[in-house]
Amino acid sequence: MIKIHFVTRNKGKFREVETLAKQYGIIVEQLEIDKLEIQADDIRDVALYAARYVFEKIGRNKNIVVEDAGLFINALRGFPGPYSSYVYKTIGINGILKLMDNIKDRSAFFKAVVVFESPQFGEKVFEGIVHGKIALKAKGSMGFGFDPIFIPEGSTKTFAEMSIEEKNKFSHRATAFKRFFEWLHGMISKT
Amino acid sequence: MIKIHFVTRNKGKFREVETLAKQYGIIVEQLEIDKLEIQADDIRDVALYAARYVFEKIGRNKNIVVEDAGLFINALRGFPGPYSSYVYKTIGINGILKLMDNIKDRSAFFKAVVVFESPQFGEKVFEGIVHGKIALKAKGSMGFGFDPIFIPEGSTKTFAEMSIEEKNKFSHRATAFKRFFEWLHGMISKT
Repeated sequence: MIKIHFVTRNKGKFREVETLAKQYGIIVEQLEIDKLEIQADDIRDVALYAARYVFEKIGRNKNIVVEDAGLFINALRGFPGPYSSYVYKTIGINGILKLMDNIKDRSAFFKAVVVFESPQFGEKVFEGIVHGKIALKAKGSMGFGFDPIFIPEGSTKTFAEMSIEEKNKFSHRATAFKRFFEWLHGMISKT
Repeated sequence: MIKIHFVTRNKGKFREVETLAKQYGIIVEQLEIDKLEIQADDIRDVALYAARYVFEKIGRNKNIVVEDAGLFINALRGFPGPYSSYVYKTIGINGILKLMDNIKDRSAFFKAVVVFESPQFGEKVFEGIVHGKIALKAKGSMGFGFDPIFIPEGSTKTFAEMSIEEKNKFSHRATAFKRFFEWLHGMISKT
């Protein structure tokens, strides 16, 4: 059985990924070490840099996975994008709702990039996107971050009104990790 | 005569610093190479990391200076802070004014951190802060970034309504660079 170390300090993210990994018979452990995040408009660059940095730091001898994600609002030219967690900590959900006040185009997407670094399998990148819209007001108390104001296409609920299992049917993070786990499953079957 | 390479792609910043340097008899040249900016809540960390990265990259054989600055709005918990240029590119001045709509506490400050790396003098850090407030609407067309909505204490004009010389009497960047130039002047006198 393969073991993956998920580098994150975010318990909410970890729980989502852990729930998913179980369905694939993969063991995921949380690795709480500081990663170096760069400023870049493309979260793929942020995730790649962070993953390589951590992989070096731990001595390239463990399977690690780093994820970076962001909420991109079309009417705000992609804001808050790569800086979603900083924006959440400062102006928060109410700040986003205020910025979206009187704006008709409420379309937005969440994007996640997953980077896997492995002594055995090398480096591999997976992406997931979920399109949807910014709700008129915050609803729900599950999940984390901007979940209470994002309604994915195909649902009338916000992410914060969904259980982890339901959110994983839609979410950018679940899509990226499913792609990763399916690929990994195939690789392991070959060896 | 000592020559300093100012690592920036921002012509507006360069002009401000060039104007100031002349008063100290110091030659400043613009060095347009990519610097690596990290995500950090403290711009001091961003500037230090970027300066060390560039200094290594050029072979540690030139005097370089890197500056990082941000606008910190108290009612927005410091937003946009270290990500001021990204926020300027996305939600812009109108986004900030919208966020500040109906907010009484309009106090804010600009902070600049200047990091000098020199084969001769080592590493040295200088800071400058200017307190002020967010204007009710944008005024002026000089300067760059959030200058049209920042009114420094001791003035009724926004930074964008001031000439470079006038802005340099108030600005965070000018304060940090004056401290740097005065220190450098002293060091050169000794050698």
